Amino acid sequence: MQFELTREFITELKEAIDSSDEIRILDLIGELHPADIAEILNDLPSQQAKRLLQYVDAEKASEAVADLDEEDQRQILEEYSPTEIAETFIENLDSDDAVDLLQELPEEKKEEVIGLLDDLQQAGDIVDLLNYEEGTAGAIMAKELVSIDSNLSVKDALVELRKQADEVEQIYTVYVIDNNQRLLGRLSLKKLLVSKTNAKIENLYVHGIKSVKATDNQEEVAHIMKKYDLVALPVVDDLGRLVGRITIDDAVDVLSEEAEKDYQMASGLSEDIESTDSVWMITRARLPWLILGLLGGILGARVIAIYESELHVYPEMAFFIPLVAAMAGNVGVQSSAIVVKGLANNTLGLGGLGQQLFKEFTVALINAAVCSVMLFIYNTVYSSSNELSYTVSLALLAVIVFAALFGTLVPMVLDKYKVDPALATGPFITTVNDITGLLIYFAIGRMMYGM
Amino acid sequence: MQFELTREFITELKEAIDSSDEIRILDLIGELHPADIAEILNDLPSQQAKRLLQYVDAEKASEAVADLDEEDQRQILEEYSPTEIAETFIENLDSDDAVDLLQELPEEKKEEVIGLLDDLQQAGDIVDLLNYEEGTAGAIMAKELVSIDSNLSVKDALVELRKQADEVEQIYTVYVIDNNQRLLGRLSLKKLLVSKTNAKIENLYVHGIKSVKATDNQEEVAHIMKKYDLVALPVVDDLGRLVGRITIDDAVDVLSEEAEKDYQMASGLSEDIESTDSVWMITRARLPWLILGLLGGILGARVIAIYESELHVYPEMAFFIPLVAAMAGNVGVQSSAIVVKGLANNTLGLGGLGQQLFKEFTVALINAAVCSVMLFIYNTVYSSSNELSYTVSLALLAVIVFAALFGTLVPMVLDKYKVDPALATGPFITTVNDITGLLIYFAIGRMMYGM
Repeated sequence: MQFELTREFITELKEAIDSSDEIRILDLIGELHPADIAEILNDLPSQQAKRLLQYVDAEKASEAVADLDEEDQRQILEEYSPTEIAETFIENLDSDDAVDLLQELPEEKKEEVIGLLDDLQQAGDIVDLLNYEEGTAGAIMAKELVSIDSNLSVKDALVELRKQADEVEQIYTVYVIDNNQRLLGRLSLKKLLVSKTNAKIENLYVHGIKSVKATDNQEEVAHIMKKYDLVALPVVDDLGRLVGRITIDDAVDVLSEEAEKDYQMASGLSEDIESTDSVWMITRARLPWLILGLLGGILGARVIAIYESELHVYPEMAFFIPLVAAMAGNVGVQSSAIVVKGLANNTLGLGGLGQQLFKEFTVALINAAVCSVMLFIYNTVYSSSNELSYTVSLALLAVIVFAALFGTLVPMVLDKYKVDPALATGPFITTVNDITGLLIYFAIGRMMYGM
Repeated sequence: MQFELTREFITELKEAIDSSDEIRILDLIGELHPADIAEILNDLPSQQAKRLLQYVDAEKASEAVADLDEEDQRQILEEYSPTEIAETFIENLDSDDAVDLLQELPEEKKEEVIGLLDDLQQAGDIVDLLNYEEGTAGAIMAKELVSIDSNLSVKDALVELRKQADEVEQIYTVYVIDNNQRLLGRLSLKKLLVSKTNAKIENLYVHGIKSVKATDNQEEVAHIMKKYDLVALPVVDDLGRLVGRITIDDAVDVLSEEAEKDYQMASGLSEDIESTDSVWMITRARLPWLILGLLGGILGARVIAIYESELHVYPEMAFFIPLVAAMAGNVGVQSSAIVVKGLANNTLGLGGLGQQLFKEFTVALINAAVCSVMLFIYNTVYSSSNELSYTVSLALLAVIVFAALFGTLVPMVLDKYKVDPALATGPFITTVNDITGLLIYFAIGRMMYGM
């Protein structure tokens, strides 16, 4: 049932496209799902992609293109004229996907495409949706939904439903509204099916259902859908009028993007990149963090340079520089990751900043004690310098505790000031902790050696 | 509409529970959704949690407990007798949630609870589901679904549906089967609603729908649901017979867990922990990686110790130890993160190992060149030693390229041998690259200084 894209398949398809071998192409892409076609498009240069799409019916083609990521959408749309975009893609899409696609066009071309739409209702929906800011619930909701007036009977509701059902690809829930379009509740198709035909909707529907405002934050909306296991969520305006619905597939995408963003931050990648992206894009995502690390390293070098004359006499102090720096980095990343995850899942902060810091302090103290003792045992066996043994273990203890508290504090403070706390993970926390670790290590060393 | 748990709320609720103030408790938890009650339970010690659950009706209570994570479920179930577990929780749950809960009981208590179930159909379903291995589609599927024979008319199908609908909380799709229970396709409720009552199901249903086998891997199943935007996915046995269905909420949980696992690995956390977990659990998740870092640091110390006599003469070589180590670590983490993400999303490997390594090599070379030149400029201005300037920049170049290739290769090799590639991210890759970085740095230094 499942489709696995192979290198052989792509090669064969490319050859068929280049030789315009229609029979071969149709045979290869035959019954494929739009999501599979999107995967293939993703791997073709945009001119070849356009030639392939000629062999796909408009509905599938539009869904496949809607499934691509923004960068790929932009590239492929450049190959099409406004008329083609309107007729092949936009008119076959639900309003939310249509809007996403339009957002990838230059302003002028976008307006031209909208002007070319035959279906005025759709054009109106699209213009409505374009008003919502990126990142809000309004920006991912669709206008296609099924709603019935609470005053209808089951029989009339079914007639109304049959009319509306044409427009909507998949009905998850029937929304019940009053005569001012205000959302009252919902009714499942199942309930409609099992109720008497003369029953009144107002006596059947579920009151007080969850809804979000069009201006609410996308990530919060996705977390609500996840928490309450919702398949669709109605969106209302400031007056409580039903203006759209968000479906779970869009929420899943929002959740994935959020998780990936945090993962990339923790790994020192500043943009959403994939292994298939160009060398230039990958470099651009990585270099900023590396330069940050470089500057940190230079600062570290200046710290050590202060102790140059001491290192002449006690070069063994250099042995444990990487250990101290690495431990500081690791502990800091662990601490900040726990905070970032806690903030994302809303499990943090019940106990407040103080309690979290105290817990982190306890954990750090235990970890630090275990590591310090292990290192001390190693050094008493293998090292000839008592001063070194004391310095290293004491420094490690201090560094771990400091790194843990710092790693906890920074993302919490960032979050408080509405900066993405994930910024504080990965290379940033590592670099800062590296330098602080060195300062602590050499300060303790100077005391121990009486330097 | 939304529920935000505050510290004040928890304090007030705890007081009400302690004083058995029923009116106050009912007022506080009133209309709460089971997911909200779960959030509250998560924050209470298990005895207080049990006392709170007395005031919640059985259906909500069971769903709230089903929503807790495994550790919390285990703790709270210890407070209940087998009879209570059967009657209060299991009998009110869908088969998949019931099985998840039962898995948290000791073997003996589990069997006792199953023996106490009144509904023999449910007991049978549960015993069936318990046979599936953890991590498979069978382990997250539910037995509750609606299926109709392809030979029925729409009218008879609606009668049959009304009968089955009682059992199933939410109908996403009606599955169509043959008289051997083999899955043929699906039919939407919408289609049933808009079709003539004497039409035959066999002429209406959608053929060749996506399904998975009960033995398929959970994460693959979740990715299929995400890719194809499926709300429910039927599960078949080896003979193609319909045995269950997986709903999107379970797939969302699988995807979240996968993303979190990768994030935790990259951050050096070996278990799924939250900021609310106990000090002991958090320590246990963090210490192993710290000890790995410690051992790496000790190895690094031994590498530097080889050059002790040289450091006596050229202590400035120590200045750039942290820089080299940090850059090696950062680059390695970036590279491995890109590979791990590519493997998870199945976007990797189309070009093959060779192509990925070559691309990584190109990116690394650009990054390395930029960083090396910057560092060289810094050193020519601020450092008095030409040898040092050459050593550091040359070493940085070599270290970045090596770390990038190594960071790419290790997760790919792990994946090939069916080991979780995420193991190779975070502290592991950092530690290995730290040591290799030192080896390269001092080897180049020895050549430059003619040591």
